[in-house]
Amino acid sequence: MRFSIGLSEYRNRVERVRKYLRKRKLDALYLTDGTSMFYLTGYSFIGTERPAALIIPVEGDVTFFGPLLEEDHIPLKTRIIQKVKTYLDYPGKKHPIEHFAEFLKEMKFDKSRLGIDNKAGASGRWGYRGPPITQKLKSTKFVEVKDLVPSMRLVKSEEEISLIRESAKWTNLAHSLLQEYTAEGLWDVEVSLSACYEASIIMKKALGPGYVPLRRSSPVGVGFRGQIGEMSAVPHSIATERLIRKGDVLVTGAGADVGGYSCELERTMIVGKPTAKQKRYFNAMAEAQKAAFETFKSGARCSAIDKATINAFKKAGLRSLVKHHTGHGLGLEGHEPPWLDIGNDEPLRAGMVVSCEPGIYEAGFAGFRHSDTVLITEDGCEIITYYPRDLEDLII
Amino acid sequence: MRFSIGLSEYRNRVERVRKYLRKRKLDALYLTDGTSMFYLTGYSFIGTERPAALIIPVEGDVTFFGPLLEEDHIPLKTRIIQKVKTYLDYPGKKHPIEHFAEFLKEMKFDKSRLGIDNKAGASGRWGYRGPPITQKLKSTKFVEVKDLVPSMRLVKSEEEISLIRESAKWTNLAHSLLQEYTAEGLWDVEVSLSACYEASIIMKKALGPGYVPLRRSSPVGVGFRGQIGEMSAVPHSIATERLIRKGDVLVTGAGADVGGYSCELERTMIVGKPTAKQKRYFNAMAEAQKAAFETFKSGARCSAIDKATINAFKKAGLRSLVKHHTGHGLGLEGHEPPWLDIGNDEPLRAGMVVSCEPGIYEAGFAGFRHSDTVLITEDGCEIITYYPRDLEDLII
Repeated sequence: MRFSIGLSEYRNRVERVRKYLRKRKLDALYLTDGTSMFYLTGYSFIGTERPAALIIPVEGDVTFFGPLLEEDHIPLKTRIIQKVKTYLDYPGKKHPIEHFAEFLKEMKFDKSRLGIDNKAGASGRWGYRGPPITQKLKSTKFVEVKDLVPSMRLVKSEEEISLIRESAKWTNLAHSLLQEYTAEGLWDVEVSLSACYEASIIMKKALGPGYVPLRRSSPVGVGFRGQIGEMSAVPHSIATERLIRKGDVLVTGAGADVGGYSCELERTMIVGKPTAKQKRYFNAMAEAQKAAFETFKSGARCSAIDKATINAFKKAGLRSLVKHHTGHGLGLEGHEPPWLDIGNDEPLRAGMVVSCEPGIYEAGFAGFRHSDTVLITEDGCEIITYYPRDLEDLII
Repeated sequence: MRFSIGLSEYRNRVERVRKYLRKRKLDALYLTDGTSMFYLTGYSFIGTERPAALIIPVEGDVTFFGPLLEEDHIPLKTRIIQKVKTYLDYPGKKHPIEHFAEFLKEMKFDKSRLGIDNKAGASGRWGYRGPPITQKLKSTKFVEVKDLVPSMRLVKSEEEISLIRESAKWTNLAHSLLQEYTAEGLWDVEVSLSACYEASIIMKKALGPGYVPLRRSSPVGVGFRGQIGEMSAVPHSIATERLIRKGDVLVTGAGADVGGYSCELERTMIVGKPTAKQKRYFNAMAEAQKAAFETFKSGARCSAIDKATINAFKKAGLRSLVKHHTGHGLGLEGHEPPWLDIGNDEPLRAGMVVSCEPGIYEAGFAGFRHSDTVLITEDGCEIITYYPRDLEDLII
């Protein structure tokens, strides 16, 4: 069984790029973004200071420029990349960007019009320094094409949606184990790593030899990320020093890599009998999420979703505790467009997949947030993640 | 007990920045790089599409610009940041960069000279789009200062070195468990997650309530990252489909977060009795690493280290299997300068900490690489990681 995007879909994606290039009278696309490369080829690599680029000519071979250590890796992972041109290492006796300029000359692009997602010609991580590729090929016209691939990723295909649905199953398992293992007196990291271990092994055993995570080293990621007790009031906490105690509000997070895609699932859990205040905040959050679920449909503006949750919090008298917008697109990256934000009037389209995660946070007390993965449909939405949302099911 | 950089060292770092600014006649530094922010303040956050900046004025309060959700987080993690200015979310009704321009005006930097590490004014992750800050403040002179903080990070302080030494202990434990758990018939990810779980829990139990990982969600990271059998020939593999078999060459990797710092430890292990060819390649790699160890000292050129390992591989008749340089700096990031690369004639300095990891790779057969963390000293080096390196100790 296959748990990844099929070759013909990758080929269609490349064809869509070529169609766009023809329309814009560009001779090739030069990509530096690792996620864009994965989206078009299924090839994922560990990005470092070493520059890499994917070249998609209107006619001719899809070509990868990168460090020598990727050369043998590529044919094992993709049939889309037809040629590989490499340099030994960074910074090298000759800078990689000089090599890239020569490679482009060899491909006869030194007097062409090239679309490029980043005029540096390199993604520029971890202490990379170098002159922009645009300075190295004076007769080439570089046209910034930053949004082409991200805009292709906005509406998900049937294949993408089915991978996200598969991800939801294993994410659900991971979260079930997380809840089962959570207990007073444990360090949250212990619970997280234990659930991550068990769920990952079971996932591999169930999916068999055809399964491998494509973009993470572990099939499943699940845990609390430091959102324990009063630290649950910090939505982007990192890790907690102390152990789980009775009365703690816990905010979780989970996902699973299926073909490089993941859903997003987060829950608010409470250790022991909830207090009246905890219940009130929890219910306000749950109501806000319901308000968003009811507003989703093709054609609804992203801002309307955010307004719906803000209104729900207003009704509950808790508007001042809102610290972020309602959600974001997802699929290949942790966050991606569209932004479910009051400032974004872009309309939702059927096939978009977004997180729905209105939250409230009171410093020194706690934070309350569920996140579900939602597929936008013509007349509403389908909630892809199905872990219980009610308070009674989320009490430890 | 404290397992992080002390407040006075953070203050000294900020003071060094101010001294530099005065010398360059700059009124403030505007930083967008998350690692630079952590280095100067001890504050680590989860970078997303939401822009953030750290402002270090020559005189006045160290100020953080960022999303509202970080506001309550900052005072819990650092005493260096004295003021926080926030926007609700990205993209927002008003773009965050417009807010940042206003914040700079409020701080009276609209007619100043500002050093900046990235003229966009935002790190630009995950679908962020926005005009550069330089366009929003026409009377401010922005001077690109990309290398200031990275250059401060090159030579490690006593405190940094002691954190890396502490990291080496837990990394050693994690690797011991990894080796102990490795067996034929297991999926490498199972072994990795199991060792990661056990070592992380033991580390926390040993270091107590004062310990928390500052920049990762898990204390320890350990595993194979797909470098199993013939896939060990791909130094940057991701994950493996198949189970561990007799005769496999395995390449490992491990680290542990202590105060946000980590060492790097990698080993080549062999399942069962090594073949003559495996022994020959292993020994060539071990000899190349020894040649590097003997070449390290303050004043030696980075290129000389790389030449020493290339010569060792030449002597063994395996030069053609080298696919990357000998190593890189480390501490806060996976890779950082200085690069131990044939093209880098920069001299090593006492206090630099680098990986030493010459490797050879034969497609379809296997890869061979140890990596150790090395502190450069006046007259040689100290090898900080101490896991056994000999073949007899690395047979499963």
